[in-house]
Amino acid sequence: MTTNRARLIPLGGAAEVGRNMWVLEYADEILILDCGVMFPEADMLGVDLVLPDITYLRDRTEKIKGILLSHGHEDHIGAVPHLIGDLGFPPIYGTRLTIGMVSAKLKERKLLDQTTLHTIDDRQSFRVGLFEVEPFHVAHSIPDTVGFAITTPVGLVIYLTDWKFDHTPVDGKPTDIDALARLGHRNPLVLITDCVRVESRGYTPSEATVGEAFDTIFATAPGRIILATFASNVSRVQQVIESAQAYGRKMVLAGRSMENISRIAFDMGFLKAEPGTLIRPHEMNSYMDDQIAVMCTGSQGEPMAALSRMANRDYPHVKIKDGDTVVFSATPIPGNEVSVSRVINNLFRLGADVVYGGTSGVHVSGHAAQEELKMLLALLRPTYIVPFHGDYRHMVLYRKMVLGMGEQFPPESVLLAEGGSIMEFDAEFGRIVGKTHVGNIYVDGTSVGDVDNVVVRDRQMLSKDGILMVVVSIDSTNGNIVAGPDIVSRGFVYMRQSTDLIEATKDTVRKALNNDSSESNTTVDTAFVNRKIKDVVSEFLYRETRRRPMVLPLVMEV
Amino acid sequence: MTTNRARLIPLGGAAEVGRNMWVLEYADEILILDCGVMFPEADMLGVDLVLPDITYLRDRTEKIKGILLSHGHEDHIGAVPHLIGDLGFPPIYGTRLTIGMVSAKLKERKLLDQTTLHTIDDRQSFRVGLFEVEPFHVAHSIPDTVGFAITTPVGLVIYLTDWKFDHTPVDGKPTDIDALARLGHRNPLVLITDCVRVESRGYTPSEATVGEAFDTIFATAPGRIILATFASNVSRVQQVIESAQAYGRKMVLAGRSMENISRIAFDMGFLKAEPGTLIRPHEMNSYMDDQIAVMCTGSQGEPMAALSRMANRDYPHVKIKDGDTVVFSATPIPGNEVSVSRVINNLFRLGADVVYGGTSGVHVSGHAAQEELKMLLALLRPTYIVPFHGDYRHMVLYRKMVLGMGEQFPPESVLLAEGGSIMEFDAEFGRIVGKTHVGNIYVDGTSVGDVDNVVVRDRQMLSKDGILMVVVSIDSTNGNIVAGPDIVSRGFVYMRQSTDLIEATKDTVRKALNNDSSESNTTVDTAFVNRKIKDVVSEFLYRETRRRPMVLPLVMEV
Repeated sequence: MTTNRARLIPLGGAAEVGRNMWVLEYADEILILDCGVMFPEADMLGVDLVLPDITYLRDRTEKIKGILLSHGHEDHIGAVPHLIGDLGFPPIYGTRLTIGMVSAKLKERKLLDQTTLHTIDDRQSFRVGLFEVEPFHVAHSIPDTVGFAITTPVGLVIYLTDWKFDHTPVDGKPTDIDALARLGHRNPLVLITDCVRVESRGYTPSEATVGEAFDTIFATAPGRIILATFASNVSRVQQVIESAQAYGRKMVLAGRSMENISRIAFDMGFLKAEPGTLIRPHEMNSYMDDQIAVMCTGSQGEPMAALSRMANRDYPHVKIKDGDTVVFSATPIPGNEVSVSRVINNLFRLGADVVYGGTSGVHVSGHAAQEELKMLLALLRPTYIVPFHGDYRHMVLYRKMVLGMGEQFPPESVLLAEGGSIMEFDAEFGRIVGKTHVGNIYVDGTSVGDVDNVVVRDRQMLSKDGILMVVVSIDSTNGNIVAGPDIVSRGFVYMRQSTDLIEATKDTVRKALNNDSSESNTTVDTAFVNRKIKDVVSEFLYRETRRRPMVLPLVMEV
Repeated sequence: MTTNRARLIPLGGAAEVGRNMWVLEYADEILILDCGVMFPEADMLGVDLVLPDITYLRDRTEKIKGILLSHGHEDHIGAVPHLIGDLGFPPIYGTRLTIGMVSAKLKERKLLDQTTLHTIDDRQSFRVGLFEVEPFHVAHSIPDTVGFAITTPVGLVIYLTDWKFDHTPVDGKPTDIDALARLGHRNPLVLITDCVRVESRGYTPSEATVGEAFDTIFATAPGRIILATFASNVSRVQQVIESAQAYGRKMVLAGRSMENISRIAFDMGFLKAEPGTLIRPHEMNSYMDDQIAVMCTGSQGEPMAALSRMANRDYPHVKIKDGDTVVFSATPIPGNEVSVSRVINNLFRLGADVVYGGTSGVHVSGHAAQEELKMLLALLRPTYIVPFHGDYRHMVLYRKMVLGMGEQFPPESVLLAEGGSIMEFDAEFGRIVGKTHVGNIYVDGTSVGDVDNVVVRDRQMLSKDGILMVVVSIDSTNGNIVAGPDIVSRGFVYMRQSTDLIEATKDTVRKALNNDSSESNTTVDTAFVNRKIKDVVSEFLYRETRRRPMVLPLVMEV
């Protein structure tokens, strides 16, 4: 790398699953911006999480001076416990709530003692290595979110992800527009910004409008009110507490992550409730239905979350019934539409009234819409702009929008950087100069990275046409069949109803092996016999069924 | 059944996948209304289609007097070739285009000769058994769509699925409002109606608005224009032809179903083009890019459809490049959002401009919105209303909407019938009285119904944590291990990197079997040994990996 330039690299897997970890590098020093997990796409079967690929950092760990965390959402802090060790335990910087949430994660993994955590103030600058970092407050769907203005030897880099201009947020702290205006006067070199809502015109409505919608529901619902949102949407939980208090309802928190995150937020003062407002689930029996509000997880239709279990009458203390009002205070993330829809249908079947969707007013996004994105650019006037936190299409539409703002932003000012793109900047230069390796690192069960692409590909194949195994024992001295062929199949045909097909498959194997033994009856080449069985059986099954199950031969020599 | 009542039953699988086949029964006669396929949900792995479950009709085939088809969409005619034989080849009634499309399907399956097809006129009533059937024209996203007013001994039953009030449709034939008004004067007993767009307020915009959006694109696109829609959306294809002609472009049809359905529509005069407008794909080279429009399949992101292949640069004759404009003239069906999104991202990556989504004006729905649904009720004033063609939530919201229209529709007038619900009606009575069995009949590869729930459940399990097989040969005389245990695994762990785990699993098996043989060393109970291996291995693997692969033991006696 040219030593007098700064490098910026979004790490992560395939572009579509996000790039929630950034490398800012100058000379011998690296600053990491956020360290989040990504959620698997539908065809990553059985995968729980996807981690950023830190190949680029493997032989540069001694350069890493620190990790800056912008806010406490999973896609910005979730990879910390998985990667902190591999990164050499660099110090972590974040605001009070963010550090609170990341501490809980580190504690769970027994990594808290080894990690240095610095709680920062959103108006107080600090130094990490050669980088001067000025945090500034922004409004988002979790309190205590910040952007970072980072002074590097080549210029000012502004990292501003997950934000909106909300002039009436729940916590009373709107985006620090004054800070942005002052940064704009300092001729910023690069702006990294969220662009995921570029398809939405106008402004994202304020959190305050959701409170109004909640009040209407609390004023009219005849029975219990059950509200689902992301557990990390602390402001939303606060709004429900306030409506509950205003309309004389007790409130219950349901779902493990809802309880955990709310506990941290209460402890730190980000959630406030009058004494007696919150009750435990088993205390609900002491109140009338119209004195109860339940705040729960499951707004994405996740099968094991509290709301899905309530919809299946599988949740202790809360069985959905006639007169209940269920509120989805969230939008389905792409890919979750069908499971959300299923939960809504089940809730209606059990007699609940369900409030959901765009026109109901019970949810607003935490991200900026078009006019806000333009307003930010008008305030900051950066030389280079790197849109992220969206699909490729959002980045393209964002660039179109920027170019529509006139000659102040020439086409080369917007860089469309996908995962692994290496960008370099100085006062005269800003361009993608190369690419580092990024793959998908899967987390599945307890272990990181041991489910790789081969395993996921196998699962895709198994899920399509199933598997058929052929097992045969042969005499190692002469190649004669001693036992079998036996056939076991799963996910292909229902074996009990397919005896003819199974028998015919066995015959095919027998014929194939007899031919072989006549050709060479002295040595037995297991690999060859395996291959032979695989080929003849695959071909036979496709001819008979037009399907291609995974065929797995196993030859045992006895 | 009470002989003086009429029965109405929606057949089909789980409610969420639709109920696109209806039984209308009176005394000894049955009329079938539509016979469509349903598309599998995401967790029905490897399933191509889902058929209605005709269990109810199995011992009633001699009663079936005919099948009425409302229009030519797959979810209304697609099951005909699969089920016509089992139904005893009853005569089929449909309009010209519908019969044309169903004929092509029957011909492909070599069933055309055995089937009686009656082409009906949408203003001419006809008799099927004791039922007097009056078809009437309705506007929808395919031409030649009709509703049916069926006079039964107990009253008038109106079957009106897949419709909207479009006063300016492409084919110049709006919904026959006069016919509906006249039916309203005849005191209809039951109305069966589409309710899928009850969440949308106001009116569905006219097809004419799409033509205007197309004209704007055709007037300004700098290069080729590639438009994707459902092949069956004949009116949309006609609109593209007209824009192409108006702006001096040649038009290519791409994708097998696009070519097949368009051929039928051209032959019957439902599609019209000036001579020379349509060209073959290989002729595109003779024209400039701004003289080309391509109409193709793939609007749902289907991986093998023309547009997806173009987006992967895998389609002959059309490789996406800078300057291309791609138009998605369709809305993603729930569940397809992610794959559509992926195709859009890839098209942008290749340099195309992509036009899609709600605000672009390039698509309107074929279904009625709230105000249209209310207008229909105001015209018909039926005693009973059965909403369908939507999820359960749509049915509930529809009932809410109906009850909001005042006392003319009391709560008991709206029947929420899921798949298999048996409804009975007479002048004094209208209620769900029972339920017949309905399951999911899967079509996968060539054969119908041989992929059942067991197979799909296995695929779900395989797709989550994969499979691990343990094979061992034992001496049938003494139970000693002769060969193995061998272990083969797919979709669980990457075997090459997991030798320790595999070896430890083998040890677990050996230990378990040694214990057994000491207990009983005279007879070998293979089933017991199988069970034992399954249990110890499952437990061991869960302890080591927190995953639950399908464990499949296979004991061979030699």
